[in-house]
Amino acid sequence: MNLDNIRIVLVNTSHPGNIGGVARAMKNMGLTRLYLVAPRDYPSEQADGRAVSATDILAAAVVVPTLDAAIGDCQFVVGTSARERRIPWPLLDARQCAERMARASSREQVAVLFGREDRGLTNEELQVCNLHLNIPTSQAYSSLNLAMAVQIVAYELRMQLASAAASDVECENWDTPFASRENMERFYTHLEETLIDIEFLDPKVPRQLMSRLRRLYNRVRLDEMELSILRGILTETQKWVARGRKQDS
Amino acid sequence: MNLDNIRIVLVNTSHPGNIGGVARAMKNMGLTRLYLVAPRDYPSEQADGRAVSATDILAAAVVVPTLDAAIGDCQFVVGTSARERRIPWPLLDARQCAERMARASSREQVAVLFGREDRGLTNEELQVCNLHLNIPTSQAYSSLNLAMAVQIVAYELRMQLASAAASDVECENWDTPFASRENMERFYTHLEETLIDIEFLDPKVPRQLMSRLRRLYNRVRLDEMELSILRGILTETQKWVARGRKQDS
Repeated sequence: MNLDNIRIVLVNTSHPGNIGGVARAMKNMGLTRLYLVAPRDYPSEQADGRAVSATDILAAAVVVPTLDAAIGDCQFVVGTSARERRIPWPLLDARQCAERMARASSREQVAVLFGREDRGLTNEELQVCNLHLNIPTSQAYSSLNLAMAVQIVAYELRMQLASAAASDVECENWDTPFASRENMERFYTHLEETLIDIEFLDPKVPRQLMSRLRRLYNRVRLDEMELSILRGILTETQKWVARGRKQDS
Repeated sequence: MNLDNIRIVLVNTSHPGNIGGVARAMKNMGLTRLYLVAPRDYPSEQADGRAVSATDILAAAVVVPTLDAAIGDCQFVVGTSARERRIPWPLLDARQCAERMARASSREQVAVLFGREDRGLTNEELQVCNLHLNIPTSQAYSSLNLAMAVQIVAYELRMQLASAAASDVECENWDTPFASRENMERFYTHLEETLIDIEFLDPKVPRQLMSRLRRLYNRVRLDEMELSILRGILTETQKWVARGRKQDS
């Protein structure tokens, strides 16, 4: 387990005070890497004020314009989410999820995404994730403050660190590195293109096809060799489509 | 376990914003009973602002002049504390402590005390406690914000509530049944056939291709809809191969 391989990514945060609160919560628990995707109001004195002795985390924070720029090099991406989404995604509570992240962090770059104060992450953002994380709350009032949510996740990660060298490792001896986010997106682009080529996907009536395929391949976490096999299949398929079309013309 | 028998007691809080943050953290986790021992500045608009939708917790909060008045009727009192005290006390981390409180709350009145923002609880106050509670933090920066500390303890209490009903069911509310072994085998046959058709798989030199693809799709546990999407893609692909071959002949 390596906390330095786990980054907190805040997407479109509105209130700079929350960014400061997040920085403090992170440092209290030993996390250091903060990414800010298009924050509304930052840098800000309010952020510094709430960070108290964690202004070093803010000073080192990486501000980026898009989510892709924040997680392109990550192999394991977790999105925080309230329950109930149209397409169910693998969903774990903060504790179980921290366990997975802890394990992955030994060898991989891990990101946890936190959405906007008022409406969280979009469906599109949630669909780049391998796993969704839910913090159990009371039904009477389930809307957690952003910094509080980060505090709980950071605390669970710290507890993992404490709970001794967590080790019963599901995929520890895997033979190939897992695919980076970037390569996964290239694969999805290639897949969509091919499905249109073979006329399986109608871009005018896409339905949920790509969402379901994303869910499938994000759930499994492809390794780089699997990814290159799948891309090879797509490339061959496209050649056959080209041959078939030549016949038509 | 009965969350209504567990009260949060804030001793001499300086900043009313923190009191509001505490109220929200409590309500998010299903706690309702807040005691304020001689708060410096309360009631306050700032408290209401930070409470957001938890102003009912503030409205019902009991303001008392002394700690005794807040916990006189309690059978089990827990004090939050940094480590190292002059007289060692039974000290548990937040998780272990939440377990004890959960058990006690079935039949007893339980209080958790949180001290001043700058110096916590006094030795005298700590010595009225049955148990001390410590939240693990990074040594580099161990001073948690007051509302954050309450959030973590309240979260651990909620997790106790949840763990009764818990089962580690990642995909409990999945929208489609998972594929049967039988259907998986039909899929693998279809997949292999198609890969041979598109000349991606050479049956004379199969290498580990099918093994790797089996590992991939078994790992993910396909649901029936995903399976039928994948089979649909294979069927379309085979049609294009047939068209391409017709051209050759």
